[in-house]
Amino acid sequence: MGSSNFRTLLDERSRAVGSYLCVGLDPDLDRLPESLPRSPDGVRAFNRAIVEATRDVAACYKPNLAFYEALGPEGWRVLADTLAAIPPDVPVIADAKRGDVGNTARAYARSLFDVYGFTCATVSPYLGRNAVAPFLDRPNCTALLLARTSNPGAGEFQDLEIDGVPLYLHVVRASRTWEHADRIGYVVGATAPGELAAVREAAPDATLLVPGVGEQGGDAEAAVRVGEAAGGGALAVNVSRSILYAGRGGDFAARARDAARRYAELLARRI
Amino acid sequence: MGSSNFRTLLDERSRAVGSYLCVGLDPDLDRLPESLPRSPDGVRAFNRAIVEATRDVAACYKPNLAFYEALGPEGWRVLADTLAAIPPDVPVIADAKRGDVGNTARAYARSLFDVYGFTCATVSPYLGRNAVAPFLDRPNCTALLLARTSNPGAGEFQDLEIDGVPLYLHVVRASRTWEHADRIGYVVGATAPGELAAVREAAPDATLLVPGVGEQGGDAEAAVRVGEAAGGGALAVNVSRSILYAGRGGDFAARARDAARRYAELLARRI
Repeated sequence: MGSSNFRTLLDERSRAVGSYLCVGLDPDLDRLPESLPRSPDGVRAFNRAIVEATRDVAACYKPNLAFYEALGPEGWRVLADTLAAIPPDVPVIADAKRGDVGNTARAYARSLFDVYGFTCATVSPYLGRNAVAPFLDRPNCTALLLARTSNPGAGEFQDLEIDGVPLYLHVVRASRTWEHADRIGYVVGATAPGELAAVREAAPDATLLVPGVGEQGGDAEAAVRVGEAAGGGALAVNVSRSILYAGRGGDFAARARDAARRYAELLARRI
Repeated sequence: MGSSNFRTLLDERSRAVGSYLCVGLDPDLDRLPESLPRSPDGVRAFNRAIVEATRDVAACYKPNLAFYEALGPEGWRVLADTLAAIPPDVPVIADAKRGDVGNTARAYARSLFDVYGFTCATVSPYLGRNAVAPFLDRPNCTALLLARTSNPGAGEFQDLEIDGVPLYLHVVRASRTWEHADRIGYVVGATAPGELAAVREAAPDATLLVPGVGEQGGDAEAAVRVGEAAGGGALAVNVSRSILYAGRGGDFAARARDAARRYAELLARRI
């Protein structure tokens, strides 16, 4: 990571592996393989094994910071060690969903981009453009705004209509007019293919992160069909638990590798 | 912290000190007193001095996690050490603004409430009720939903009208119907007294956290007049930088104490 532009790196990497598969690194102590200790050291070993097993097919990785924060201070060292284990040509997304007022957002951007070295982070749009701006002032970094998330009940607020336009789409359209809009991408769940199509139509050249495939029940084939863009927009379709926890025995890494290969095929790049 | 109910503790403490002053613990390396090293150890010493100087007048404290995360892994130990320096009868709010899908939200709740021992955290509403629910399943803990934030441009999405009701107020009204609504409070900026009044009217018995007084320019007197509730709702009005950075010389703690006393008077409890 570091000097290369995230968006270019993601596009090149998804071409190289022929797939849009993003492997979510969301280590849950309760679901670690039986052979590993339920501790930060266990997570460190688990993540290294998962990265080693999936690095040939992953277009990118996406650690969700919640799972590292929940390990206490040592969890952040585990995060840094995990990032160090990822090959430099594979881009990494900080799934952080941060969103705070200006000077605080600057501290989060410094943490993610400068301290930990990510070049992409997910950001909440609720506070508006000046809370997102600190994530947009580095030319090589991308901020992925939450648009329509993958959780059940995501539509409770995101689908509310303002003059006939649902909030999530209003967020996308408004953010297209912000300064450095070319550094903004969007998060849209595979669980909502119609909404994904609407976002892709509104932002044909933006990077889309599509979570929700696997345990969350999203449709992998639809994610590619709808998210893949002739307009130049990059795409990453995330699978976490269905790969990480494909096996819990001594062969967990081999099982994860098999699952990652299956998902990489399901998420094959076609253009 | 730990076993006492946050809401009760906040109400008792604001009665005891006669003020709604919440001291925001947002340590910025660039603004530390000249006598302290710009390092996690410097922040640790700074926070301890600030807590020592303000503990007599503070109704509560509110560390914003961004400033600790930005210090790297050691920052989380500084956070834990800061919490340990706060007297047990003074409640503490984790200003985290988390908001993620169910299993991830559970990891954040575990981090804040179980690992770090907070009993209150700020949460983003954008993902809807099932993303907030993991913050509501502990009887002694409160989740403060972002309603109308204190930043310039907060209204870009928060003020959008849905059938004539602005989004921030829709969030408040909807969340009043959720399970464990008595464990939900709201964040409304002192920079928006009209919106604060609307939220207080919609939720007379809820805890309100009102940031934006001091450097952000919010009106302290209006925050109390509008936020104070005969209906039983607790109130905390946050001041961060105007206290923390009142002085940068060798007398920084005395200057912070003076500033905290002034703000405590401005934010005096009247009922």
